[in-house]
Amino acid sequence: MGEYLFNVKMSCEGCSGAVGRALAKVDGITYEVSLQNQQVKVTGDVPYETVLEKIKRTGKEVVSSEVVVA
Amino acid sequence: MGEYLFNVKMSCEGCSGAVGRALAKVDGITYEVSLQNQQVKVTGDVPYETVLEKIKRTGKEVVSSEVVVA
Repeated sequence: MGEYLFNVKMSCEGCSGAVGRALAKVDGITYEVSLQNQQVKVTGDVPYETVLEKIKRTGKEVVSSEVVVA
Repeated sequence: MGEYLFNVKMSCEGCSGAVGRALAKVDGITYEVSLQNQQVKVTGDVPYETVLEKIKRTGKEVVSSEVVVA
């Protein structure tokens, strides 16, 4: 069960909502998107690279990221 | 050479920038993203469905779309 943190540039609730909707399509994960903290937390049985790619496809800039639990 | 119009919900320049960055990764198209008009115009040798899918992957809501030239 992996746990990943992504620092993502999000300017408004439209931005954070878009990231949430993109992640909602990924099976097997739970996620929290915080506009205030500019942070996306993902937990689940999906590889880090897969989640990173999904977030990148939103066009949002991933400033940094961290594998908390591999 | 197809020409497609998409009406996309975008709330801020972060939103429209994200859509632009997502489309920048698609080879063989040119695009214009208008936050003011809530509109994305795409021209190129790429099928409509492919472009639609790329925009949907941003997590933005596509309110309506139109194939201007198939």
